[in-house]
Amino acid sequence: MAAWGERLAGVRGVLLDISGVLYDGGEGGGAPIAGSVEALARLKRSQLKVRFCTNESQKSRGDLVGMLRRLGFDISEGEVTAPAPATCLILKERGLRPHLLIHDGVRSEFDQIDTSNPNCVVIADAGEGFSYQNMNKAFQVLMELENPVLLSLGKGRYYKETSGLMLDVGPYMKALEYACGIEAEVVGKPSPEFFKSALREMGLEAHQAIMIGDDIMGDVSGAQRCGMRALQVRTGKFRISVITVIREV
Amino acid sequence: MAAWGERLAGVRGVLLDISGVLYDGGEGGGAPIAGSVEALARLKRSQLKVRFCTNESQKSRGDLVGMLRRLGFDISEGEVTAPAPATCLILKERGLRPHLLIHDGVRSEFDQIDTSNPNCVVIADAGEGFSYQNMNKAFQVLMELENPVLLSLGKGRYYKETSGLMLDVGPYMKALEYACGIEAEVVGKPSPEFFKSALREMGLEAHQAIMIGDDIMGDVSGAQRCGMRALQVRTGKFRISVITVIREV
Repeated sequence: MAAWGERLAGVRGVLLDISGVLYDGGEGGGAPIAGSVEALARLKRSQLKVRFCTNESQKSRGDLVGMLRRLGFDISEGEVTAPAPATCLILKERGLRPHLLIHDGVRSEFDQIDTSNPNCVVIADAGEGFSYQNMNKAFQVLMELENPVLLSLGKGRYYKETSGLMLDVGPYMKALEYACGIEAEVVGKPSPEFFKSALREMGLEAHQAIMIGDDIMGDVSGAQRCGMRALQVRTGKFRISVITVIREV
Repeated sequence: MAAWGERLAGVRGVLLDISGVLYDGGEGGGAPIAGSVEALARLKRSQLKVRFCTNESQKSRGDLVGMLRRLGFDISEGEVTAPAPATCLILKERGLRPHLLIHDGVRSEFDQIDTSNPNCVVIADAGEGFSYQNMNKAFQVLMELENPVLLSLGKGRYYKETSGLMLDVGPYMKALEYACGIEAEVVGKPSPEFFKSALREMGLEAHQAIMIGDDIMGDVSGAQRCGMRALQVRTGKFRISVITVIREV
């Protein structure tokens, strides 16, 4: 295995996942992962550009950053690439009026979006909002459309809270895909467009950046497919058995 | 197109789906589909053997038959092939102790099953029971198992109630499959084993039977793959657009 210096040659910027890398969410807002506040502070003091690339879709960027600052992290809203604002751009560009199956915490990101007479469904990590009734409503809206459009803020399988593993938006996206016989458009990691927008905001090329995350698919494979380097941390949703499966493929 | 007499030559038995063929479920127990009570009575007076082959997994066979009898149908419990009893046989044969993600209405079918210290998950059409919390619990049980086993009572995409289309168990099965990176074992239509057990109970070979249902995949394709003839009714979840899609493939 190459030495660290060699593996990181030419890296000018670091993209950091947030949940499972900086902190684990959960009761009372969650807790920082040991050493992460200091590691981020050290990165910020270095010559490296730092940007946060998250699929967080339960909270608005403002609420997310406020929570992280209270936990001691040096982070500002302008440094965060998140799927909700990216989705709003797409909705406006394509004249889409969404039925929103989202968490109340992220609803403010969609304040400027016309949701009357929906012609698409936007699904995000709704948490407890993934009731049968809410899923069924989204399903019915899609089935009424001649050309059903489903936008999904990420497609993560699960994430880790302090209390344990929690279902993410991906399984619910798959449920609606199967129910309606359609394929969702993913806004967020591992979509190449999403990584590219984060790189643009850093002013870097893919080969100049490294993505650090806890998700072997969303963070590591996704970034590598874009030509970036990637590193998986052993925190958050990292589990030895998942690595074993990936290596066996 | 061949005449009816020719297409039905050699048919000695009829397998009938229930929901969407005999009745549409819904508020107050649902309503018979126009003409179906009389059609069943006529079938029963004919020389044909009649059996009911359902993926109903919200109700026990006893409750289902009681409800249908109150609606005027000539049906008894012994004439019904349903996934819950078939699942109980599999659980016993394989020494599986399930965590049950099912509707309360079908729980009595599992009264004799050991559910302590679960080593598998059984998922059925839980309706409102498909809360985020219940789905997450099933997910966590599967993720704790070294060899996760997921049994699904059917894999229907949706069904029709008097109030509209409703998500069936299939989308939730897909959600757990994706979340855990596993494949479920389906007990019910369109599983060939399930059709074969219904044929055994009728004492007929596949080529002697015709399946009548409203689901192009679960009923029609499933039965045809077993060598049976099949007929799709234009009631229940039948929708013109689904036929169009199938023909385009």
